[in-house]
Amino acid sequence: MILDSDDIERQESRYRGLFINSLSGFKSANLIGSCDKQNNTNLAIFSSVFHIGAHPPLLGLIVRPHSVSRHTLENIQETGYYTINHVNKSIYQQAHQTSARYDKTTSEFEATELTQQYLQQFPAPFVEQSRIQLGMKFREQHHLSINATELIIGEIVLINIKDDVVSENGYVDIEKAGSLSVSSLNSYHLTELLSHMRYARPGGKAETDQP
Amino acid sequence: MILDSDDIERQESRYRGLFINSLSGFKSANLIGSCDKQNNTNLAIFSSVFHIGAHPPLLGLIVRPHSVSRHTLENIQETGYYTINHVNKSIYQQAHQTSARYDKTTSEFEATELTQQYLQQFPAPFVEQSRIQLGMKFREQHHLSINATELIIGEIVLINIKDDVVSENGYVDIEKAGSLSVSSLNSYHLTELLSHMRYARPGGKAETDQP
Repeated sequence: MILDSDDIERQESRYRGLFINSLSGFKSANLIGSCDKQNNTNLAIFSSVFHIGAHPPLLGLIVRPHSVSRHTLENIQETGYYTINHVNKSIYQQAHQTSARYDKTTSEFEATELTQQYLQQFPAPFVEQSRIQLGMKFREQHHLSINATELIIGEIVLINIKDDVVSENGYVDIEKAGSLSVSSLNSYHLTELLSHMRYARPGGKAETDQP
Repeated sequence: MILDSDDIERQESRYRGLFINSLSGFKSANLIGSCDKQNNTNLAIFSSVFHIGAHPPLLGLIVRPHSVSRHTLENIQETGYYTINHVNKSIYQQAHQTSARYDKTTSEFEATELTQQYLQQFPAPFVEQSRIQLGMKFREQHHLSINATELIIGEIVLINIKDDVVSENGYVDIEKAGSLSVSSLNSYHLTELLSHMRYARPGGKAETDQP
């Protein structure tokens, strides 16, 4: 089927949500841990965490200020710190449940029985059940007026990761760590490695590589 | 292992590239088609396409202006249009080969034998072998001074997609369409659906749903 802007505009709102959210391709599945200055904790699933650069190590995050994710945004603005924790197969149902619209006074850690973990005086809570945990320092906020969302840019300042998923060349085997991928709004996928590819050069042919 | 900012700073550059690029989680795999005003075409693989919003339908893209992806950026700025084409299993090796540093005068379509396709007078080339093709209109550019990258925001104005991957509720089964996922810089993964989850409500338990 071929659709143009008018066809998209005519879609029913919930239909369009599922449809358009599918089109960027597979997304990351992460739990963001945060707290306010009174140490009330919050945990929320996001599929909008993305890589911005390796040096300095920066990740972006799209937040809708009026959605259920507003508590995460408020906490990041209040303390300047948050955590990113990969969702894996053992915890994806609890992770998904964090998307329910809980009161600000309810911690999703308690509501979903995911375990708060503190590491090296880092001022935001990690998810103990996650095998790849990142401590993030807030760096920049860009208001995207085009649809009233906020781009939050954070720097990775602490990493806790199982040794056996890090290869000699630096590649982290997130599939082995059990990390999941998301499509659309609510579909969770396991992955299966097809190939590591070599750095491509003009005139050459694409070649596979060792991890 | 636990690493802090000093540990990351001490990593060798290529090691850090593979390592940090792994940490956001799974990424999308897309080919971006573009052309200049003389209709010289360009095709480049990106793992940095991400969802920004459904209404209007917006996707973001991170471009490094001094990298191999600069021709894509120049073409988008010159014409205001580009295409996003999902990478699938049949074409991922050719797709990866587009990351080689070809001259501006070489079209990656020819170099990799992926086929240019034009749809409904849309002014940029699609990839015929891709099963999910998006026609994009440039909307906004944000300079991210923190690491000298550019955030390009585009609106989806044309969609060409196989009917049999679109569910009644709007969900697009990109796994059935063969779309791949990327980890780190150069690793390609198939996916396997674990579950569609229902909309979560406080007090409830996470439940699976039909697609």
